[in-house]
Amino acid sequence: MEDSHTEYSRRLNYYETDQMGIIHHSNYIRLFEEARLDMMKKVGLDYRVLEEMGIIIPVTFAECRYLVPLRFDEEITIHTRMTKYDGIKMEVSYEVYKTGKGELCTTGKTGHCFLDKELQPIRMKRRYPELFLKLKGMMEVSVNGADIK
Amino acid sequence: MEDSHTEYSRRLNYYETDQMGIIHHSNYIRLFEEARLDMMKKVGLDYRVLEEMGIIIPVTFAECRYLVPLRFDEEITIHTRMTKYDGIKMEVSYEVYKTGKGELCTTGKTGHCFLDKELQPIRMKRRYPELFLKLKGMMEVSVNGADIK
Amino acid sequence: MEDSHTEYSRRLNYYETDQMGIIHHSNYIRLFEEARLDMMKKVGLDYRVLEEMGIIIPVTFAECRYLVPLRFDEEITIHTRMTKYDGIKMEVSYEVYKTGKGELCTTGKTGHCFLDKELQPIRMKRRYPELFLKLKGMMEVSVNGADIK
Amino acid sequence: MEDSHTEYSRRLNYYETDQMGIIHHSNYIRLFEEARLDMMKKVGLDYRVLEEMGIIIPVTFAECRYLVPLRFDEEITIHTRMTKYDGIKMEVSYEVYKTGKGELCTTGKTGHCFLDKELQPIRMKRRYPELFLKLKGMMEVSVNGADIK
Repeated sequence: MEDSHTEYSRRLNYYETDQMGIIHHSNYIRLFEEARLDMMKKVGLDYRVLEEMGIIIPVTFAECRYLVPLRFDEEITIHTRMTKYDGIKMEVSYEVYKTGKGELCTTGKTGHCFLDKELQPIRMKRRYPELFLKLKGMMEVSVNGADIK
Repeated sequence: MEDSHTEYSRRLNYYETDQMGIIHHSNYIRLFEEARLDMMKKVGLDYRVLEEMGIIIPVTFAECRYLVPLRFDEEITIHTRMTKYDGIKMEVSYEVYKTGKGELCTTGKTGHCFLDKELQPIRMKRRYPELFLKLKGMMEVSVNGADIK
Repeated sequence: MEDSHTEYSRRLNYYETDQMGIIHHSNYIRLFEEARLDMMKKVGLDYRVLEEMGIIIPVTFAECRYLVPLRFDEEITIHTRMTKYDGIKMEVSYEVYKTGKGELCTTGKTGHCFLDKELQPIRMKRRYPELFLKLKGMMEVSVNGADIK
Repeated sequence: MEDSHTEYSRRLNYYETDQMGIIHHSNYIRLFEEARLDMMKKVGLDYRVLEEMGIIIPVTFAECRYLVPLRFDEEITIHTRMTKYDGIKMEVSYEVYKTGKGELCTTGKTGHCFLDKELQPIRMKRRYPELFLKLKGMMEVSVNGADIK
């Protein structure tokens, strides 16, 4: 079975560096957000539309391991995978590479829940069965190894 | 007549630097926001309360001149003044010093209007006469040179 | 004569919003940096290479006017122009549009000087005549209206 | 035995919010940095001085759990503890509270190593025995429960 993930690429900005001469470690949490929302949009889950529907998906935890420092103007590619989804919670993992190179530079994971505008949990399967299936589909893709792009 | 201004101090953070080894120029716009909201709170205009009342005060323009670079862990003091207020628009000016030193490091100015939640202009004098007077008071203080603290 | 500018596009991120529901005003200064470095790279002035050569180009002033608020997930296009260059200083102007739409949302201008690693001014014409000509070329393009892309 | 930690307090800024109306999750990693550098300074380890000596202390991992969302203008207090230090690596833990309240809002942990300017590991015990003892002292305080402030 093939590896399954979504890829998101962009160049690193000058304002993302710090005086150590590398990308400041807090910015990877922002890169993960970009990659995650890109992955969701690619399967038809546009976060802007979800918020307009009254669904918010806050972050419950975030983890990041910094293996190789990244620098200004390097182009990176993030491999993003849905690793858990049970209708209540989801987990997403991230691998950051310099575009076109094999060395793993950063890994990360974030956890999420699904809330309504009053910050109450949403049972996705009951309230939004179609969205539930799309999210579950992303999960199965990761398990089965099919490419979701 | 004495000079009139509000003073706001804090230390500069590591994550605010860039690889030039100085505070990234975009962060001064954020420092101005901190100093402006601090000035308003000191005369009883708590921005959190204003937003809860349905008043938002967006920025219509921002200007900054960088005279002396600032660095990680330096403590700065910002001198903030209301320079214009006519009930529809306000302008605020900023001077950034290293705390306890006379050299002017950065100057700036921001412009603001008063909107309701539908982003429509608010006539402060008619709708919120008490707030109007507080804001006007800040302006007169600047003109008259009395210390508003 | 045609209009002359470089265009830089990207989508706005969730983490760039604030609780007003719009892109926080400080982030436009960062967008201008992205657009400016992109414009310079397109004429062969790679800022990473310039810094490695010992040339830094700090910002001496920044100005921004906020005409129409921008929001999460909107794609913007920034039109960037070199408006002044005399070998010592340069000025760059910015116009921000929603991609494919004619309405001007934000305008801005930044000023810059050329310093060595000891933060001393560099006379570009004498020290780096080839770079001087590239920079001057960008300026003439703006004056003449030829497209530099 | 008493609990041992360093406390760091500050107010949360408007520009740290996102359109969910809460502090954006990436900013906690920055708050942790502020609290960590404050803790080190309080035992005589000024990070600015360390960098001038040629010691850099990059982050090897960061973790954060978001229990209760925090909002603009709330004052928070971070309880910071050195939880591991062996001369090569250190780990620091964080607990974020609203100042004066008992409810735990956020927890986190960061890992660090000690590098020279060529990004090579430093054996602190051999190269900087005095700094080694200060760092070890912070660790023992955590174990023994004495207050290091």
